[in-house]
Amino acid sequence: MEFENTQRTQLDKLGEFGLIEHIAANARLQQASSIKGIGDDAAVIDAGNHAMVITSDMLVEGVHFDLVFHPLKHLGYKAIVVNLSDVFAMNALPEQVVVNIALSSRFTLEAVEDLYNGINIACEKYKVDLVGGDTVASPRGLTISVTAVGRAKKDELVYRNGAREHDVICVTGDLGAAYVGLQLLEREKQIFMENPKVQPDFEEQTYIVERQLKPEAQREIILKLKELGVKPTSMIDISDGLSSEILHICRQSGVGCRLYEAKLPIDHNAYEMARKFNLDPTVCAMNGGEDYELLFTVPPEVYEKIRPELDVSAIGYITEKAAGVKLIDKSENEVEIKAQGWNAFRKR
Amino acid sequence: MEFENTQRTQLDKLGEFGLIEHIAANARLQQASSIKGIGDDAAVIDAGNHAMVITSDMLVEGVHFDLVFHPLKHLGYKAIVVNLSDVFAMNALPEQVVVNIALSSRFTLEAVEDLYNGINIACEKYKVDLVGGDTVASPRGLTISVTAVGRAKKDELVYRNGAREHDVICVTGDLGAAYVGLQLLEREKQIFMENPKVQPDFEEQTYIVERQLKPEAQREIILKLKELGVKPTSMIDISDGLSSEILHICRQSGVGCRLYEAKLPIDHNAYEMARKFNLDPTVCAMNGGEDYELLFTVPPEVYEKIRPELDVSAIGYITEKAAGVKLIDKSENEVEIKAQGWNAFRKR
Repeated sequence: MEFENTQRTQLDKLGEFGLIEHIAANARLQQASSIKGIGDDAAVIDAGNHAMVITSDMLVEGVHFDLVFHPLKHLGYKAIVVNLSDVFAMNALPEQVVVNIALSSRFTLEAVEDLYNGINIACEKYKVDLVGGDTVASPRGLTISVTAVGRAKKDELVYRNGAREHDVICVTGDLGAAYVGLQLLEREKQIFMENPKVQPDFEEQTYIVERQLKPEAQREIILKLKELGVKPTSMIDISDGLSSEILHICRQSGVGCRLYEAKLPIDHNAYEMARKFNLDPTVCAMNGGEDYELLFTVPPEVYEKIRPELDVSAIGYITEKAAGVKLIDKSENEVEIKAQGWNAFRKR
Repeated sequence: MEFENTQRTQLDKLGEFGLIEHIAANARLQQASSIKGIGDDAAVIDAGNHAMVITSDMLVEGVHFDLVFHPLKHLGYKAIVVNLSDVFAMNALPEQVVVNIALSSRFTLEAVEDLYNGINIACEKYKVDLVGGDTVASPRGLTISVTAVGRAKKDELVYRNGAREHDVICVTGDLGAAYVGLQLLEREKQIFMENPKVQPDFEEQTYIVERQLKPEAQREIILKLKELGVKPTSMIDISDGLSSEILHICRQSGVGCRLYEAKLPIDHNAYEMARKFNLDPTVCAMNGGEDYELLFTVPPEVYEKIRPELDVSAIGYITEKAAGVKLIDKSENEVEIKAQGWNAFRKR
């Protein structure tokens, strides 16, 4: 092996997606059992009659959570849920999780118990088993890395690349509340830091705070789709924000789309609170992220079938590629959708 | 959910193994596909005709590696190998890996390329596919979390709990060199820190330095055992040190053992270098760790069959439980083996 190379390119110039593409380009698949590698919500591995899906996410203190307002129990719960969400997005059901934790000596056994308490509650609720993991020391801070394993019949798997022209674009639940919840938590933290005697005032915003602290994955939707005999043409979970997820679907499916601002499902409280923070609720819904809802596409006749049965909104439709990836705003202006993701999120 | 509990027990009072037992006690398996949960080298999941094994390890900068002397390419290689070692220890063959990385902005694209270069070289060599992962920001330092997935026929799997009285205890390769290599690297770092003009002097100790920086997993041994039609009664990989691994086997198999100091395979250069550092080579072999050799047990007649075919040393035999877990030293004294692991390692 040679020594490291000496050029210096800053990572922020490339961005996370650029970095992932860079990594994926060099990952050559040689095992016959590797059905799908890097590039979807989860990898797919041949397991005889079934396929196993495998996905892994890391949460880092100071980047993905702040222990001032993320209780460890909620954090354990969330660390599991965000991974299960990726399994559901493959139209698979999760069965096992492996949890790695690095933590500094400032954490006590009771803190670790709180964390695992949340992990165990999530496992119980979503019917998955904690089957292994690694617990190691860290010089500072807490890092949680969860790997989830799920299963589906091979022909049930849904990828990002199957959306077809005229398909209806559906999203479950509502969008933007997790981001607005984070703003509220940040504001109360700021006030608390300036004067620790002031108790936090969440203005009875339980819903939006919980969307941030204790998100849920869309197990019921997946079970209901199976019950209805419906298999979406494409699907992805909303972790980085609707903009970036619809771009993944359009790029990988080789199509365009038209989304309608007026159709975006935004919770009433999240809408009002966004306004209070001088944030555009649409921007929160498009780019906020961490909603862990499912974005999927189905042909129009299938949409008519699922519409009365599921908590899902039709927010637009798939077009040919040349039409681009567009948002039609409330004034009927056509705006090109760009991935902003978390970091690029700006108030306006 | 309630808030965190308020007792404060320091983690170091419990130790890593105590903590893992604590976590395992609360992890209830509810999925029929979970064949084996926490407590072996890897978890085992039902996959029809086969079983999948899954294992995950985390490497943290400042705890598991020091970038002053761990080149990123070697580190990427090592992060894969330590996980594959756990898969081989189940008598399974690894097929896929998922790599999560958290890194601070001090790392450049070229640094990440070096790391993935090592990862890809290890994948190529061990015939595994990199199928996914997460790349996230970290406030400081580098953390690598790798999950490896392997496969075996169900009746081929080897656990830690199958050792029987009279079985021969075998170890592949040699022990202690990785630890002695680390001492050498630490010494040269110290000298470099005091005077950056002095070039490191590894005294041509390529072998022991490589054992630390670029360990290998025992793929060839597993293939050879399969070729010979031999299935060990128990097996574990040596990551924390022989003492702690033989204790796992004895405890989980409900047996005792007698190991012989004179039989421990120690590389000549590692022996001499340990002496130079005023370390007891036996302690390095018993407690040094990071050798990534395999420790396994076979009945005596099977040992006779494999002896001429494999690079393996018979270092003792399994006894009834009441006889305890013993090391017979070179003066024929019987010493009780206690797990010391990495942190408790002391010069003498």
